[in-house]
Amino acid sequence: MYRKVALDSLRTYLRERGFDVMIIPSNDCHFGEYVPGYFNVIKWLSGFSGSAGTLVVTQNSAALWTDSRYFIQAAFQIQGTDVKLMKIKMEETPSIFQWISSEYTEGCKIAIDGALVSYAEYCHFQKEVSPSKIIAIDDPFVELWRERPILKFDKIELHEEKFSGESVVTKHKQIIDRLKIKGDFAYLLSTCDDIMWLCNIRGNDIDYNPVALSYLVITNEKIFLFVAPGSLSPEASLYLSTQSVEIKKYDEITSFLKNLPESMIRIVFPEKISVKNYFAYCNSNTQVINDPTFGGTVSYLKSIKNRVEIEGFNRAFLEDGIAWCKLLKFIEDNIDSGLLNEYNVAKKLVEYRSRSIYYRGESFEPIIAFNKNGAAAHYSVDNEKNAAKITKNGFLLMDTGAHYPFGTTDTTRTISLSKLSQKQIDDYTLILKGMIQLSIAKFPKGTRGSQLDILARGPILGIGKMYFHGTGHGIGHYLCVHEGPQSIRMEYNPVNLIPGMVLSNEPAVYVEGEYGIRTENVLLVAPWYENDINSFYQFETLTLVPIDTTCVNKKLLGKECIDWLNVYHKNIYKTLSPHLSKFESKWLKKKTKSI
Amino acid sequence: MYRKVALDSLRTYLRERGFDVMIIPSNDCHFGEYVPGYFNVIKWLSGFSGSAGTLVVTQNSAALWTDSRYFIQAAFQIQGTDVKLMKIKMEETPSIFQWISSEYTEGCKIAIDGALVSYAEYCHFQKEVSPSKIIAIDDPFVELWRERPILKFDKIELHEEKFSGESVVTKHKQIIDRLKIKGDFAYLLSTCDDIMWLCNIRGNDIDYNPVALSYLVITNEKIFLFVAPGSLSPEASLYLSTQSVEIKKYDEITSFLKNLPESMIRIVFPEKISVKNYFAYCNSNTQVINDPTFGGTVSYLKSIKNRVEIEGFNRAFLEDGIAWCKLLKFIEDNIDSGLLNEYNVAKKLVEYRSRSIYYRGESFEPIIAFNKNGAAAHYSVDNEKNAAKITKNGFLLMDTGAHYPFGTTDTTRTISLSKLSQKQIDDYTLILKGMIQLSIAKFPKGTRGSQLDILARGPILGIGKMYFHGTGHGIGHYLCVHEGPQSIRMEYNPVNLIPGMVLSNEPAVYVEGEYGIRTENVLLVAPWYENDINSFYQFETLTLVPIDTTCVNKKLLGKECIDWLNVYHKNIYKTLSPHLSKFESKWLKKKTKSI
Repeated sequence: MYRKVALDSLRTYLRERGFDVMIIPSNDCHFGEYVPGYFNVIKWLSGFSGSAGTLVVTQNSAALWTDSRYFIQAAFQIQGTDVKLMKIKMEETPSIFQWISSEYTEGCKIAIDGALVSYAEYCHFQKEVSPSKIIAIDDPFVELWRERPILKFDKIELHEEKFSGESVVTKHKQIIDRLKIKGDFAYLLSTCDDIMWLCNIRGNDIDYNPVALSYLVITNEKIFLFVAPGSLSPEASLYLSTQSVEIKKYDEITSFLKNLPESMIRIVFPEKISVKNYFAYCNSNTQVINDPTFGGTVSYLKSIKNRVEIEGFNRAFLEDGIAWCKLLKFIEDNIDSGLLNEYNVAKKLVEYRSRSIYYRGESFEPIIAFNKNGAAAHYSVDNEKNAAKITKNGFLLMDTGAHYPFGTTDTTRTISLSKLSQKQIDDYTLILKGMIQLSIAKFPKGTRGSQLDILARGPILGIGKMYFHGTGHGIGHYLCVHEGPQSIRMEYNPVNLIPGMVLSNEPAVYVEGEYGIRTENVLLVAPWYENDINSFYQFETLTLVPIDTTCVNKKLLGKECIDWLNVYHKNIYKTLSPHLSKFESKWLKKKTKSI
Repeated sequence: MYRKVALDSLRTYLRERGFDVMIIPSNDCHFGEYVPGYFNVIKWLSGFSGSAGTLVVTQNSAALWTDSRYFIQAAFQIQGTDVKLMKIKMEETPSIFQWISSEYTEGCKIAIDGALVSYAEYCHFQKEVSPSKIIAIDDPFVELWRERPILKFDKIELHEEKFSGESVVTKHKQIIDRLKIKGDFAYLLSTCDDIMWLCNIRGNDIDYNPVALSYLVITNEKIFLFVAPGSLSPEASLYLSTQSVEIKKYDEITSFLKNLPESMIRIVFPEKISVKNYFAYCNSNTQVINDPTFGGTVSYLKSIKNRVEIEGFNRAFLEDGIAWCKLLKFIEDNIDSGLLNEYNVAKKLVEYRSRSIYYRGESFEPIIAFNKNGAAAHYSVDNEKNAAKITKNGFLLMDTGAHYPFGTTDTTRTISLSKLSQKQIDDYTLILKGMIQLSIAKFPKGTRGSQLDILARGPILGIGKMYFHGTGHGIGHYLCVHEGPQSIRMEYNPVNLIPGMVLSNEPAVYVEGEYGIRTENVLLVAPWYENDINSFYQFETLTLVPIDTTCVNKKLLGKECIDWLNVYHKNIYKTLSPHLSKFESKWLKKKTKSI
């Protein structure tokens, strides 16, 4: 009922201004994955709280497009509203414009918020929209949404070079060298994580992402950083003043862009600039960069971790491995108590992580999912009331990550809580086999992630099952847990895997109504071997969390993978046990025993 | 010396007409892989006889660009000329225009033969060439090359529907339906194999490819086929007259294109039309098709084999398997004689194949390569004098294929002739393992070949070796042994693998100066399993030739692959033995014994 009122208020607003439809993306004006509550209009209108979706509201109807990660969650959350669920990539699902034109066969007037739609999407819309028309408007929810959360601008801290491994000045120089632009240029960044990386700062404005809401413009001579006035810590201010960074006000970005000298070359990433800023910024001197393999962009440079960052990742996974061991032991010790549930297990991990003075928070909404809840790839509960009780029966899937100033983690473990069926054991084993097959891959320079995806996906495909998400995403260094441009997915991504890139490795299987299994380590791309003709790379596993071996079908796993698993566990024990109590250490010894 | 005279005659010809440079591609005006001797200008000028290369001749220099398949062969063949070898995809290799501009820093005038350069390549050249200029000229070698072979126009035979499985009329209809063009259109085909497929005819104008030199124009109403006058057999003529095919003269294609009604929509494949025909054909009503995944093209439709064609392939591999068994036994029986060499072994296989009344010739230049000769991926000898003697020592690599009216084959086997070193055994085993891993892959609808390549390439990559060619190419049905658009390679190819597609599976390893190992089967993409959410596919192996098991490291091969190999061999024995003599059958029993 509440959603209906919200939807209808939007419908009236649109109708009064001559619009029939509004397309509402889930992103904010910085195009990150997590958005401040302020921008969470889709949740307000439909109840859906997932991180990716597009809501389309017409005068008579509404529909939400989301991907397979959220099919189950979205169906649940939009129950009781008149919002239809549109499952992306399913054959029966119409595109947004197919659907709109089935409602408005004669065409209609469609509104978008010019600050939220990227220029690339806008161009795409323009191509598809005919005979309808699409028009950028200002945010209607300023007026409509009474209890709208406020935009939070928290303190911005210095991210010391002892963690980042490189000064702003050298990063700036590297960008200029790689861009190879002749003449004066401006390079606008709207993406907060890129800005944090370049400036060696971190913020706290968005859940799970240690970033500040900010814009940035790189020129040949200096860097202009747009942040909320007064938000920079004295250390950060001082540091930036030594690095040719000039501080500007967050709100002034659009007027700054408008007033850039006409002759300056504008560098544009059509997917990462809003329509609004595009029209303020771009003129005939615009140079569009569409190629994600181009090595001169901040996001590309950021994805290739330096020596200090890699050492930091190792430290982060050590800290995290310690906390995970404590948690796994805690679950084992307390499973009989009848007191464990999905919510308090998540809290317990936070408690263990917090024992490290370096812990800076969780890197995403933790997923602690018991049996059938594990079948929703991105399930999470935000309060104890909704949490399932964890009993000695089936699988517990746990996918959580943490931030440390020296790195970000992301680990999934699925543990068996009871004797399992052969089907469960085989599913578990095939997912583990896939995870290991990818971990041990050797590949030549020039290999793309999509070429390796089959190594992780192959074993479960072999029994006619599959997962609909990617196998691996890039991971930021004390930044966003999902980071581009690299990936390991079925979908084509032209970006080659380069030493220094960090990626997750998370094959999975979901049996709706029964259970989900996912096993996830984090991999570093590293040089392996070189000869006259070629360079070969391999992965180094960063994660240090024991894998449940009690539900492995050894025959199915195969010798090569068993050998890897035993070496992996040996290394975990060696690395973690010095940091554990005697009891914990003894427990870990048992958990990491060769199979 | 002879090459020098040829090169200098071209230099003089160019200079007299105001040109500095000529770029000479290896293709003919039909853009097939094999070209009639008439077009083999590169061989005349440089000695290089490989199937792919580009020769660039400047006033002072000359250079040949070719790919890894031909590095060794090209280096050998151009010895003694002033032609430099440019290895494609090696880091140190300049592009053609980088090289030209290093010779002519101020720019120069470059000639190309307008009938041989595709419009796509021409556009690409135009972008790269500045400050030089590129100009299309007529073939200079008509005048320069005294002993030039003549263009052969042989008989064109009917390819009966009992082999092709479909009439021209239904193929024509399918193209029209899939193209979905509104209004009258013309669709020019320059590629002879597409023309043969569409018209259910076969020719004999090009070595190894049963095609006739021809052009074709599809319109809404009928098909215009351009062939040499009098070349059609009475049966072919009669058949085509019942299928709305109008016969035109080969030489009249360009004038026919010029005189098409202005209003007709021109369908153009920029990579398969010469600059010359492009300018005769295209006007403002041109519709360019660049997307190889577009299902409305003849080459795409041709790649998905129908039921009759698939049954035919099975027959072809049966016939071929019988001949191969006889050959393998022959080699075993005669290896001690001291009389075997690379040339007479190739001839012997032709002899065995010829015993089938259906044999129509070899599908490519046979590769029979002893030890170090096997390290050149496309090695072949054209006379007994140059052929290496085959002795009881090391590896013999044999890669040959045949045409039958019901299908085309392509098989590689490497056999051990003596006790081998551990390195040789392991290399052999890893190649076999890769071949089998790809053979047993299961994959969802929507999978591209490049996603599966790692399955074949992975094992040999695991020891820091690799092959620089693709793992699999499409195979024509009594047509070209290399056929698109599908492939299994590292390089991105957007074409999905679709049931009915036929591909080779040929991982390899080459140790220069020592040996080459390649094991090649042919695979059919077939449906495997379907559920609510997805369709899954698998490969069916078509090839029926035993694989040498005497040099397998069983531990390295692994249980899954051993199981496959044993089932494969069992099936070969069951299928082939009824067609073999008692002695041959006994021999095959031994060769196909489980390991």
